[in-house]
Amino acid sequence: MNMQVIFLGTSGSIPTPSRNLPSILLRREGEQIMFDCGEGTQRQMIIGKIGFRKITKILITHMHGDHVLGLPGLLQTMALLDRSEKLCIYGPSGIRGFMEDMIRSLQFNITFPIEVYEVKNEGTICREESYEIKAIWADHVVPCLAYAFIEKSRPGKFYPEKAKALGIPKGPLWGKLQRGEAVRLSDGRIINPEEVTGPPRPGRKIVYTGDTRPFSGLIELAMKADLLIHDSTLDDALAEKAGEDGHSTPSQAAETARKAMVKKLVLTHISARYSDPSILLEQACRIFKNTIVAEDFLSLNVTFPDE
Amino acid sequence: MNMQVIFLGTSGSIPTPSRNLPSILLRREGEQIMFDCGEGTQRQMIIGKIGFRKITKILITHMHGDHVLGLPGLLQTMALLDRSEKLCIYGPSGIRGFMEDMIRSLQFNITFPIEVYEVKNEGTICREESYEIKAIWADHVVPCLAYAFIEKSRPGKFYPEKAKALGIPKGPLWGKLQRGEAVRLSDGRIINPEEVTGPPRPGRKIVYTGDTRPFSGLIELAMKADLLIHDSTLDDALAEKAGEDGHSTPSQAAETARKAMVKKLVLTHISARYSDPSILLEQACRIFKNTIVAEDFLSLNVTFPDE
Repeated sequence: MNMQVIFLGTSGSIPTPSRNLPSILLRREGEQIMFDCGEGTQRQMIIGKIGFRKITKILITHMHGDHVLGLPGLLQTMALLDRSEKLCIYGPSGIRGFMEDMIRSLQFNITFPIEVYEVKNEGTICREESYEIKAIWADHVVPCLAYAFIEKSRPGKFYPEKAKALGIPKGPLWGKLQRGEAVRLSDGRIINPEEVTGPPRPGRKIVYTGDTRPFSGLIELAMKADLLIHDSTLDDALAEKAGEDGHSTPSQAAETARKAMVKKLVLTHISARYSDPSILLEQACRIFKNTIVAEDFLSLNVTFPDE
Repeated sequence: MNMQVIFLGTSGSIPTPSRNLPSILLRREGEQIMFDCGEGTQRQMIIGKIGFRKITKILITHMHGDHVLGLPGLLQTMALLDRSEKLCIYGPSGIRGFMEDMIRSLQFNITFPIEVYEVKNEGTICREESYEIKAIWADHVVPCLAYAFIEKSRPGKFYPEKAKALGIPKGPLWGKLQRGEAVRLSDGRIINPEEVTGPPRPGRKIVYTGDTRPFSGLIELAMKADLLIHDSTLDDALAEKAGEDGHSTPSQAAETARKAMVKKLVLTHISARYSDPSILLEQACRIFKNTIVAEDFLSLNVTFPDE
């Protein structure tokens, strides 16, 4: 089951010729989940030849314009394309009022149901059959959420030789056991999946910080994540300004990645002052080697930990 | 005195890889006046290497998202760049509420004065020393303004031989007469500028329709304009749909251009269905030859009628 993370916008609070304002798209099993939606996100999707219809959820980290101002235009375009599927929008307090203001001011003719959830408490904010999304408070100058997309564990690896040894006939019963279901054989015996499979295999985990200073809660949220997408607005030499503005430096992001033992770190929200971001990469790599700097339209395949 | 019109966005209501959402910038004497501000306009300016500081006025034609959603992000960026100069925003009813909602929702730290004018009545909405801006109601599906930027007449051409014949010494007195001022000679005679200059020379006129069906009032507004920038969303074969949606076709735009005897017609607000807009150009040129189809970053120099 493929999972891709596509960076639609990777700039800081002001866009550049090569970086649009922040937005990240997670594609998985025919579903698309968007994190942040800076101005111009709809056009980035059009340029990237990515359809709008499969977006089911949009999660906003905070109510600063550079993270949210692409939302009304995206919704307008969805409506112009006659979308009928429900869309869920999550964000901090203020997201509902923003949506209501927009729909009123711009006389939208919305063709589809929109459900807006203002996140009040840390924890799981959405639970689906095969994944959940958690949110915790980051450390920015306004309330800002960090999100974790966490796949549920999959059943353990199936061992055909064990099934054969137990006299389970090859066929539909094997399939059920593979999916983690118990089966009853024709002789009355009940076989539990654990008898023919290995231990459950962990799913994938992706964490996005939004805008934030480094903060300790993030280490737990990001623990063993496959991908940690971290604010890295300014380089280490500007650590003081980064802190004042509620942002992180490459070393701070890398330190969290190291402590959380993540697989890969992606630096994003890159200030317009870095036309060449190699300084950011160098500073992070000294502390955490498997780091990259995001760029617009970068697409990462996220594999299972055991793949 | 140079005057340029720069097309920052020329798409219909959905952007395309090559066309951003509507915005037009008029540059004149160190001042920039923006007409409409679709989502992504600030980035178009950055790509086009056009500074924000000299924008003094932003005129919105109507409160549809594709014409106004770039405004909050542009203002945020101006504030991040520590703008201090006043900015005037004009638009139909609703523009004030939209601005207030935005500033509240997004916790803007606005560093400069913003004056918002809701246009209620047709006529001159702003009068400056060397130009005025007029607005009239266009014919769209929501209240939509068409704008005319009209330069005042300049003093007539100065004839040095007439000045010499009247015994006016070359020097500062010639300059005053050239600027349209009367002068007193050392012998007591008063010379009026009309004695040494030709008739006043008309200034330049640029008219922008916003989104509209063809309507008769536009002919008067656009009469003898140097540039008529006209909605041309759909081609003639889709005239019925254009009418339903409150838009114009190339032939309709060209008919107005012909009747208004304008110098040049620019078709804009081009639907995403025309990756090649030559059909639009052909249809308009049959009726009005001096037509072009706008494209993003097209820059037109507008010369004086007598140049």
